[in-house]
Amino acid sequence: MRYVYSFDHKHRRPPMEHKDLLGGKGANLAEMSSVLKLPVPPGFTVTTDACRAYMESGWPSDIDDEIARHVAELEATMGRSLGDANDPLLVSVRSGARISMPGMMDTVLNLGLNDKSVKGLAKVTGSKRFAYDSYRRFIAMYANVVMGADADAFEARLADARSATGAATDADIPADALVSLCTDYKKLAKEQTGKAFPQDPYKQLRGAIEAVFASWNGARAVAYRVRENIEHTLGTAVNVQTMVFGNRDERSGTGVGFTRNASTGENKPYGDFLVNAQGEDVVAGIRNTQNLDDMKEVFPEVYDELLDIFVRLERHYTDMCDTEFTIEQGKLWMLQTRIGKRTGVAALKMAVDMTKGTGKGADRWKITREEALQRVTADHLDAVLHPQFDTSGEVVATGLGASPGAAVGAVYFNADDAADAADRGEEVILVRNETSPEDVHGMMVAEGILTVRGGLVSHAAVVARGWGTPAVVGAEAIKIDGKQFTVGSVTVREGDVISLDGSTGEVVVGAMHTADAEPPEEFEILLGWADKVRKGKLAVRANADSGDDAANARRLGAEGIGLCRTEHMFLAPDRLPVVRRMILADTEEEEAAALDELRTVQQADFEEVLEAMDGLPVTIRLLDPPLHEFLPSVEELKIKQASGGLSDQERRELAAAEAWSEHNPMLGTRGVRLGVIKPGLYAMQVRALLDAAAALRKRKKHPIVEIMIPLTVTREELALARSWVQTEVDSALKGMKNKPDITIGTMIETPRAAVRADEIAEAADFFSFGTNDLTQLTFGFSRDDVESRMMPAYLDQGLLKRNPFDTIDQTGVGDLVRLGVERGRSTKKKLKMGVCGEHGGDPESIDLFYRAGLDYVSCSPYRVPIARLSAAQAVIRNR
Amino acid sequence: MRYVYSFDHKHRRPPMEHKDLLGGKGANLAEMSSVLKLPVPPGFTVTTDACRAYMESGWPSDIDDEIARHVAELEATMGRSLGDANDPLLVSVRSGARISMPGMMDTVLNLGLNDKSVKGLAKVTGSKRFAYDSYRRFIAMYANVVMGADADAFEARLADARSATGAATDADIPADALVSLCTDYKKLAKEQTGKAFPQDPYKQLRGAIEAVFASWNGARAVAYRVRENIEHTLGTAVNVQTMVFGNRDERSGTGVGFTRNASTGENKPYGDFLVNAQGEDVVAGIRNTQNLDDMKEVFPEVYDELLDIFVRLERHYTDMCDTEFTIEQGKLWMLQTRIGKRTGVAALKMAVDMTKGTGKGADRWKITREEALQRVTADHLDAVLHPQFDTSGEVVATGLGASPGAAVGAVYFNADDAADAADRGEEVILVRNETSPEDVHGMMVAEGILTVRGGLVSHAAVVARGWGTPAVVGAEAIKIDGKQFTVGSVTVREGDVISLDGSTGEVVVGAMHTADAEPPEEFEILLGWADKVRKGKLAVRANADSGDDAANARRLGAEGIGLCRTEHMFLAPDRLPVVRRMILADTEEEEAAALDELRTVQQADFEEVLEAMDGLPVTIRLLDPPLHEFLPSVEELKIKQASGGLSDQERRELAAAEAWSEHNPMLGTRGVRLGVIKPGLYAMQVRALLDAAAALRKRKKHPIVEIMIPLTVTREELALARSWVQTEVDSALKGMKNKPDITIGTMIETPRAAVRADEIAEAADFFSFGTNDLTQLTFGFSRDDVESRMMPAYLDQGLLKRNPFDTIDQTGVGDLVRLGVERGRSTKKKLKMGVCGEHGGDPESIDLFYRAGLDYVSCSPYRVPIARLSAAQAVIRNR
Repeated sequence: MRYVYSFDHKHRRPPMEHKDLLGGKGANLAEMSSVLKLPVPPGFTVTTDACRAYMESGWPSDIDDEIARHVAELEATMGRSLGDANDPLLVSVRSGARISMPGMMDTVLNLGLNDKSVKGLAKVTGSKRFAYDSYRRFIAMYANVVMGADADAFEARLADARSATGAATDADIPADALVSLCTDYKKLAKEQTGKAFPQDPYKQLRGAIEAVFASWNGARAVAYRVRENIEHTLGTAVNVQTMVFGNRDERSGTGVGFTRNASTGENKPYGDFLVNAQGEDVVAGIRNTQNLDDMKEVFPEVYDELLDIFVRLERHYTDMCDTEFTIEQGKLWMLQTRIGKRTGVAALKMAVDMTKGTGKGADRWKITREEALQRVTADHLDAVLHPQFDTSGEVVATGLGASPGAAVGAVYFNADDAADAADRGEEVILVRNETSPEDVHGMMVAEGILTVRGGLVSHAAVVARGWGTPAVVGAEAIKIDGKQFTVGSVTVREGDVISLDGSTGEVVVGAMHTADAEPPEEFEILLGWADKVRKGKLAVRANADSGDDAANARRLGAEGIGLCRTEHMFLAPDRLPVVRRMILADTEEEEAAALDELRTVQQADFEEVLEAMDGLPVTIRLLDPPLHEFLPSVEELKIKQASGGLSDQERRELAAAEAWSEHNPMLGTRGVRLGVIKPGLYAMQVRALLDAAAALRKRKKHPIVEIMIPLTVTREELALARSWVQTEVDSALKGMKNKPDITIGTMIETPRAAVRADEIAEAADFFSFGTNDLTQLTFGFSRDDVESRMMPAYLDQGLLKRNPFDTIDQTGVGDLVRLGVERGRSTKKKLKMGVCGEHGGDPESIDLFYRAGLDYVSCSPYRVPIARLSAAQAVIRNR
Repeated sequence: MRYVYSFDHKHRRPPMEHKDLLGGKGANLAEMSSVLKLPVPPGFTVTTDACRAYMESGWPSDIDDEIARHVAELEATMGRSLGDANDPLLVSVRSGARISMPGMMDTVLNLGLNDKSVKGLAKVTGSKRFAYDSYRRFIAMYANVVMGADADAFEARLADARSATGAATDADIPADALVSLCTDYKKLAKEQTGKAFPQDPYKQLRGAIEAVFASWNGARAVAYRVRENIEHTLGTAVNVQTMVFGNRDERSGTGVGFTRNASTGENKPYGDFLVNAQGEDVVAGIRNTQNLDDMKEVFPEVYDELLDIFVRLERHYTDMCDTEFTIEQGKLWMLQTRIGKRTGVAALKMAVDMTKGTGKGADRWKITREEALQRVTADHLDAVLHPQFDTSGEVVATGLGASPGAAVGAVYFNADDAADAADRGEEVILVRNETSPEDVHGMMVAEGILTVRGGLVSHAAVVARGWGTPAVVGAEAIKIDGKQFTVGSVTVREGDVISLDGSTGEVVVGAMHTADAEPPEEFEILLGWADKVRKGKLAVRANADSGDDAANARRLGAEGIGLCRTEHMFLAPDRLPVVRRMILADTEEEEAAALDELRTVQQADFEEVLEAMDGLPVTIRLLDPPLHEFLPSVEELKIKQASGGLSDQERRELAAAEAWSEHNPMLGTRGVRLGVIKPGLYAMQVRALLDAAAALRKRKKHPIVEIMIPLTVTREELALARSWVQTEVDSALKGMKNKPDITIGTMIETPRAAVRADEIAEAADFFSFGTNDLTQLTFGFSRDDVESRMMPAYLDQGLLKRNPFDTIDQTGVGDLVRLGVERGRSTKKKLKMGVCGEHGGDPESIDLFYRAGLDYVSCSPYRVPIARLSAAQAVIRNR
């Protein structure tokens, strides 16, 4: 196996297609060297194969010869030798994985310096100071990175040298002092590591390469990969490259440049540079950088050359590129390029702009609309959809980002106080240990919601997402104590202002400034293209529970509602007492009266939703959660009983709450099971729905109603539930002209339903995969319980590659989805199928759903644009 | 399609193989008529096809002609005609499904009587009284069964007739009064139903047949089928048979006879008969019957003929038969035969006896040992294994039979009181709302355990089954109030005696007498044969958590332990405080000290278990349940806090219990997840186990240890857990001679593990399917929550055919088991696989496991004999 390639090696395919082997940086260096013939300091890449071999069984035995051969070539090309006493070759050794992991792995610069070659460097540069400054930097870096010495000790000696010589900055330390500092450093390295600093440049090289390999499994790098979902087995390549010096003199410099503006997307080069400096000085921000435009004055020729290179890079990569360059004594060297990262706004603008064409004559290039669609990510869209903080503040706690967007307001600790403050015109953040239906009136008026406990499907999270209210849940560092909370040493009292970021889960004390969400015009253009691509292939609906949500979803491009959770209609403060009356009813008459009252209000709710989605399908899920969710907590009532006593009403509520309480409510009497135990409930809901549809038909509207039975496990169960619905439908539509369009289907959200989809399909007009519950049951993970404690440990240790609640588990849950589709369609070839779990808004999951053959995905209204884009990308990707 | 067959029709195969078509009774009547040529009153069978056609789309149009043809044949054979005024043919019309449903469906006797033919009957019998008595019975029966009149009204008129004529019994009513009663009855039928009682015998016949068909879907019959797991689609056949009269005179009679003793199994005919009576008189128990032996005196010739028929029947059916017969004026008629039901003791004895041969000379017959094995059911074995009540008492409440056996004792309402009473020598029943680890010392001394709440996997149920202590759980009718409970109007105080049946779930006030379990000698003989059949095909292990359990299991034939739940070792009263210390530990030292203490006691536990199973494999499952199960209840502590205040220790316990509490503990931090969060726990357990194994090796024992990781969902998770175990194993066994035999495997108990079994197999030496949890997750059923409330409703309404926790769901969960086996073996062809859910002791589930290719089943010790038999039956059945 070959482990080393020089940058100008003639690969059979363009090197940029060999990122797996050469890493991103190495591939792009080779692309610039061998294809574009740009001025790149010569060098070679040690491949990721070598790194993987190293991780498997240590330093590969045959690699030394290969490296030596490439060093010899490099020396021949440059006419300089490693360690030479007259004009030494110096190299940098840098990591470069397939996926960029900025700052996570180790780098060694100025390699090749030793007691002999430092003199050669002094000679050719005419600067002893420069040579020994480079040497002392190299020794410190090498001792730390390769030999494992403590960097602080070297910093301390440097500080000593500064004070001993009265130097204000490192640059003021005289050359002789640097010479003795080098001697000092070598001793220190020996003291700290027990080994001598190696004078042999070949030993230095091997040490540096090995250190980079080893840094792949360093704690920082591993943590980064976990966070970014990068596979641990990839390994890194190592790039060994001739050093050039931007800090040689005033004719030298270094900079970073973007071929377009990465912030705004404007088609104008953009960047920073520094005269007489090295790359790290730009990054470190020690000196104030100059704008790239200023280079026109400082280095006019180099500036023209650079801009010409920018044009060639863009044309070659057909995208905006990000570059690092160095000017050594008037000569421009390109050190790195890659496709540039960009903001959401910029990504949208660039994608659309590039379809219009750039450059002149033979240099003109453009991308297709489909390519443009692939240039934009979900994060890009997300960034332009939600208000974001545009300043940063001190984060005092981080919870789970449960509902995106930024919120600022005065904290209140219960729903009543929050509602009162909102009445007074305050902007309010509701802070609770966790929320329950009793808090809903406070949640409704809040700008943001913060809870101490609970996961991404906790009451607070689900309700907040439904309303598009920013929310952070499970911020466990926060301790609520009456009308204040503490977190570490910080205390926040009622009325104090905090800021929440519902995307990142960050909580900041004080008011942060938020930028309003105002998507740029390219947003609609791109989504229009996306819709054309996915038309007839994968539809996008929204999960919405109210007329407002539905209208909002429609505005964002939803082609219907995939999930309308009727229970949310039960939680409004005016409904809850009626729901409780229904549960507490002693007689059938009382129960019927309460159901009748609910029917009237539900009918109004349904009318709003159906009207907002007029002419588009609306899937209404019959009541799903266990009834005890509508009752007060057993624990609280029992505590009250023990401490003071209960009113008659509370005593009845306690009895009911105890009767309906369950050890594992997720696996208890919910969904269609509730229907079996209390069939009047479903009949009431269906009647309300049909009355709503009929009322709309009278107003010449076109409601399309899909009635959905939740949590089915057997065909018989669905057939029974279907018969209740059908009875109501038959009686309601009897003799009606212009009947509304009504179908009856089920959720596929238990593993059994997926496995027995063939039987269940016999009683269903459609399927909707509920991948939240399906994931919970397939893994045996209660989202509420595992998300805060277990999931972080599992992701950290690589036991799970992804949080399966964010991105569908492709091989486990995904297998069951595929099985469900296949078996369902074996019974009814044209069975309509969709997904309404939160995965419906996740790009990778959408790809799986498209491949599995679903007809639509449904997600929260704010994810609809992302789903539209992802659906189009899935169609393109799987052509 | 042909719908009617006469009893003497020449079927191509023996009629007894046509039970699907002819029903059980019809097939056996045909067998006796056409094959055995026994004296059977002629008749014909209307098939189950006709019934199914009737259920589908009403009375089949072409059936009338077919029936008429068969009636004509019958008339020709008998030389009598339906409705004839001189010597009328009378017939009975009886249901007969494939599976006997005694008393569940309708019957009409004396059909063919009308105002004309009743006179003919009077003429030929010479008894007007007899004829009109038969007629009044027929009118009442027909009006009720076919026409839908109320039976009580007819009874009232009969009572009037008795009092009007001063008759003591019906038999004393004079003939003339019966004549007017018949007139009266016809009027009454018209009044009640609006239709006239039909005089046309053909109309009567069609009405009766249709009524029998309709009774298949009567409420009683449906409920019976649900209870007995009989499919609703089978339908019933209808047998139309010439009436013979055992109540004609003193030379007539009727009886039931068994070819052997159904109670004891003794090879001696057994039965009852009555002179001058009809079959219903025997069944109704109005008159005292005579023993079959007495028939020798009363009807010596008939007796010899009957005994000869018994011999022929047994030889023909090669089994004990149950018969009904009638003697009309000295002539014997066989009305019915079938394989006779029998007690457990009798089943065992007969099965073994019959392999030895019965009868003489050419009549000699016997069955093979394999046939003998198939003659015995799990219920038969169960009956001889557990002490049973041999008297009956008034059942005041019924819960779930959670742990079989009968128990009698004085009730105590908390563990301390129970333990004190046991110390005083009382036999104790512990009664609790539900039990927790804190009750264990009371549970240990109890003869039986009764709880108000909880399902079959509640703490009480699991612990009781483990110990073989009879238990009834979830007896929700019982209300505990301090030191007494009430159920309905009954109050039971501390110290009062009650009796529990842990098989049926029945609770009786007062002491019932229990028969001790003393299996007959045939028990061991049959199980020995079973073991030979299943050897090398399907092994049987036990779930056992202590040395005593293990020894007991081994005595009952277990070939190892398939599941040793180490958490039960944590629950003993001396362990629990240490476990809590471990959980509450503030420092690593405290935690380590507590773990060390636990290690010592666990080692002793393991030694006992391994020693009891010396030389046989023992699967030890590492800690599985969530830690909060070892802590006191949050609710109770909070109530205490609100009402009085907590001690420091309690405050710490509350904080820990809150920290570890979960919304859905079944889906939370348990199994290997616990290991990931608290790795010290698993290391401690493995060390204790290895030390135990090493100690046994020193004593020349041969421990075979299988270490099992619970609740795995990913390969990575199992690989990590395996690495902890392997580290301990490597360090413990280093340098040891005579190493114990140790393998490492996992439970397959989540749907994901089944679906990804191929990957998981890479890190496993064996699989054990945990079908309890797999069922919970596949259905989304929390057994604790759904078993008492939802399951009865689901079974009643036919939404589930079986309780999937009793018998594995063949198509859903079973599919996942098959998939898991297949995928696991695709990675490791010889991967050892077993099952350790409670399905491991259920015959039908064992059949599925055998077909799926498992190597062993594991069940509670008391089910081991049943599993041995069922495994052999599965092997034979699937040859």
